[in-house]
Amino acid sequence: MERSRAERLISKGEGLDAIVILNDGCPFVDSTFWYLTELNGGSFESSIAVVRKDGNMDVNVSVLEEETASSGKGDVRVYRTRDERDNYLREALRGADNVGFNMHNATYSMVEYVRKTVKGIKVKDASSAISSAVSVKDSKEIELTREACRISSLVAEEIPDMLSEGVTEKEVAFRMDARMRELGGTGNAFDTISAFGENSSKPHHSPTGRRLGKGDVALFDFGTRYERYCSDMTRTVFLSRPPEVLERAYEVVLEAQAAGIEKYMDGAPAKDADLAAREIIDRSEFKGRFIHSFGHGIGMEVHQDISVSPRSEQVLREGNIVSAEPGIYIPGVGGIRIEDTCLITKNGCERLTDFNRSITIV
Amino acid sequence: MERSRAERLISKGEGLDAIVILNDGCPFVDSTFWYLTELNGGSFESSIAVVRKDGNMDVNVSVLEEETASSGKGDVRVYRTRDERDNYLREALRGADNVGFNMHNATYSMVEYVRKTVKGIKVKDASSAISSAVSVKDSKEIELTREACRISSLVAEEIPDMLSEGVTEKEVAFRMDARMRELGGTGNAFDTISAFGENSSKPHHSPTGRRLGKGDVALFDFGTRYERYCSDMTRTVFLSRPPEVLERAYEVVLEAQAAGIEKYMDGAPAKDADLAAREIIDRSEFKGRFIHSFGHGIGMEVHQDISVSPRSEQVLREGNIVSAEPGIYIPGVGGIRIEDTCLITKNGCERLTDFNRSITIV
Repeated sequence: MERSRAERLISKGEGLDAIVILNDGCPFVDSTFWYLTELNGGSFESSIAVVRKDGNMDVNVSVLEEETASSGKGDVRVYRTRDERDNYLREALRGADNVGFNMHNATYSMVEYVRKTVKGIKVKDASSAISSAVSVKDSKEIELTREACRISSLVAEEIPDMLSEGVTEKEVAFRMDARMRELGGTGNAFDTISAFGENSSKPHHSPTGRRLGKGDVALFDFGTRYERYCSDMTRTVFLSRPPEVLERAYEVVLEAQAAGIEKYMDGAPAKDADLAAREIIDRSEFKGRFIHSFGHGIGMEVHQDISVSPRSEQVLREGNIVSAEPGIYIPGVGGIRIEDTCLITKNGCERLTDFNRSITIV
Repeated sequence: MERSRAERLISKGEGLDAIVILNDGCPFVDSTFWYLTELNGGSFESSIAVVRKDGNMDVNVSVLEEETASSGKGDVRVYRTRDERDNYLREALRGADNVGFNMHNATYSMVEYVRKTVKGIKVKDASSAISSAVSVKDSKEIELTREACRISSLVAEEIPDMLSEGVTEKEVAFRMDARMRELGGTGNAFDTISAFGENSSKPHHSPTGRRLGKGDVALFDFGTRYERYCSDMTRTVFLSRPPEVLERAYEVVLEAQAAGIEKYMDGAPAKDADLAAREIIDRSEFKGRFIHSFGHGIGMEVHQDISVSPRSEQVLREGNIVSAEPGIYIPGVGGIRIEDTCLITKNGCERLTDFNRSITIV
C-alpha cells in the first residue's frame, strides 16, 4: 500500500517523535495542513495537525470546521473550548520528546502556545524536513498543477487581444483574472502584476490607472489556483516598436531563461540554473540588472520551499515544481521578465506553462 | 501636526524601546507593515519595519522593493545581502532593550532571527499594543473601508438576479467576484462562500458544483478589498419557499443581529453584543446552534484584532470596524447567517454594508 502523506512527512523528520502543523488566524495558516488532510476547502483557523512517529495523525479543529474536516484524512478531534483543545494536544503529544515545527509557516504565538501547554517537549525546527517532503509532488498534485498551468497558458495566448492604446493596467489585470476563473481556475494564485512602461521596472508593481501608450512595454505576472495548486507565469509584450534597449533586453532574458532551464533536472544543484542565467545577463550590457532569484518552488503556496538562487544549497529532485524567471530591470525605462512553471523530471524538466515566448509586438 | 501612525503605534507600547514588524515569505507577511508605511502595493517578503521610541521608523527592504518602498513612509534602507540586512537591523535597534513583536502575525523563524542577530534584546509580546493602535481606524482608513462596503452592498443587491434553478455554487461565486472587481474592488477580501441547501450548514463551506434547486436555502459570505481594506457581509436567500424550519431560523437570526448591533458603541464591552445575540438564539428552539462568535475586527485583514465573543475582554472604541454575524446551523438541512460590517461610533454604530436584510424568496 502507498504510504500516506503523513507517513512520508514523519519519515523525513529524523530524530523527531512528532511534527506539529499550526494554523493561527488567516492568512497565518500553513498549507501543509491541507496537504496532510487532503482537504480542499475550509478556513481552519486555530486548527492543529499532529503527526506521530507511527504515521498516525490527529486533526484538532473547532466545532466550526467539524463537518468539513470529516471528509479529510486523519483522526478528527473537535474541541468546543480552549481547555478541550489543550487536552487533545497533550494527548496527541503524550510521550513525545522532540517535537518538530514548521518555523517559517507558524506564528511565534502558536509555537509558544504548544510549548507552554505540553510541558517538557523540546521544540525543534522541522521546516527543512517538511520542505523536502512537500516539495516532491505526487501524481495527484502534479495533475492539479498541470491544470492550473494549462489555464494560465490559455490566458497568456489572449493577452495581445486585451491590449490597445489607452487601456489601463488595472483593466487588463481584471480581464486576465476573470478569464482564469472562467476557464476553471478557483481563484488567483497571487495578485496579478500588470505593469506598463516605466512601471515594469518594479518587479512587484501593483496595477494602477496607468494607460498603455505606443512604444510601451507591458509586463504580466499571473497565476491561478486549481483546487489550491498554483501556476505562475510571466509574459512581456510590446505595443508597437519599443525602445531598442528593451528589445535587446528581451533577447537576453530569453536566452538566460533557456540557459537556466537547461540545468533543471533531478540531482542538479538548484543554484546551477540561477548561475547559468545570471552569467548570460551579467556578460551582456545589462550586468547587475537581474536583481532577484531565478526561481522558487511552487505548490499550494506560490513561493514554496525551494530557492533557485546563487547561494542555494538545495538539490533538485524529480517531482519538484519550480519557476524559471530571469528578468532585466531598468528604472525609468522598463523591465523584461519571462517566467514559466517547470516540473523537474529524471533527465530534465517539463514546462507546465507553455506558450509562445518569442518577442511579441502587438 | 497630526501624529504619524508610527508615533501612535509606539505610544501604545508601554515600556518598549522599539516595535519590530516582520514579514516572512507570502502569505506570512504582516499587514501592519502596510499600515505603517502607507504603501498600497508591493510584496515585501522578508522586509522589516522598526519603530523606535521617538516615533522614527526604519524600513528595511530588499533591492527588489526599492522603487516601490520609496513612495511610502519611513526611512528606507535597501539591503543587497543578508549581512547588510543584519547590520541595518542592529543599527535600528541600537540601545534598545525591550523590543516588542506582533506575535500572532510574525513567524517563529523571523522573531528568532531578530533575537539571534541583535544580541541582548528582550523579546516582548506587543500584539495587544499593536492591536489597540491598528483597530482604531483613521479617517482615510474609514473612507477606504466605506468604499469596499459600498461595492459589496451593490453586489448583494444583484444576488437574486444571479439565482435560478440549476445554477452551481461555483458559478454564482464567480459572478459575484467578477462584479466586485467590475465595480472597483481590487480583489477578494477572502474566498467567497457560496453554499446551497445542506452545504450552508458548514460555516466555511467552499463552493462546489452543487446545483440550486427549488426550496433550497442559498448562503453567500463575501467581501472585496478596496486599496487593501476589506468589506465582509453575508446574505442568505431562498429559491422558492424553503422548509419552514429555515424561515423560522431566518427570523431568529435577524432578531439576534439587531439585538447584538444594539450593543455596539464606544465604551461597550465587546462581549455584550455576542451575549445579547446568543441569548435570543438560545432561548429559541435553535438553542446551541450558533456555533461561532458574533463578530471580529475588520481592516487590512478580514479577521483582525477584535474578538466579539462570549469571553472577549476587549472594549469597543470609536473607530473600530467589526462584523455582526449571528448564524444558525442545522446539519443536513441548512444554515442561516446574516452579516454586516459596522463602524463603532460615539453613541452606537453605522452599518457600512447596508442592504436589505428582510427575508428574500426568489
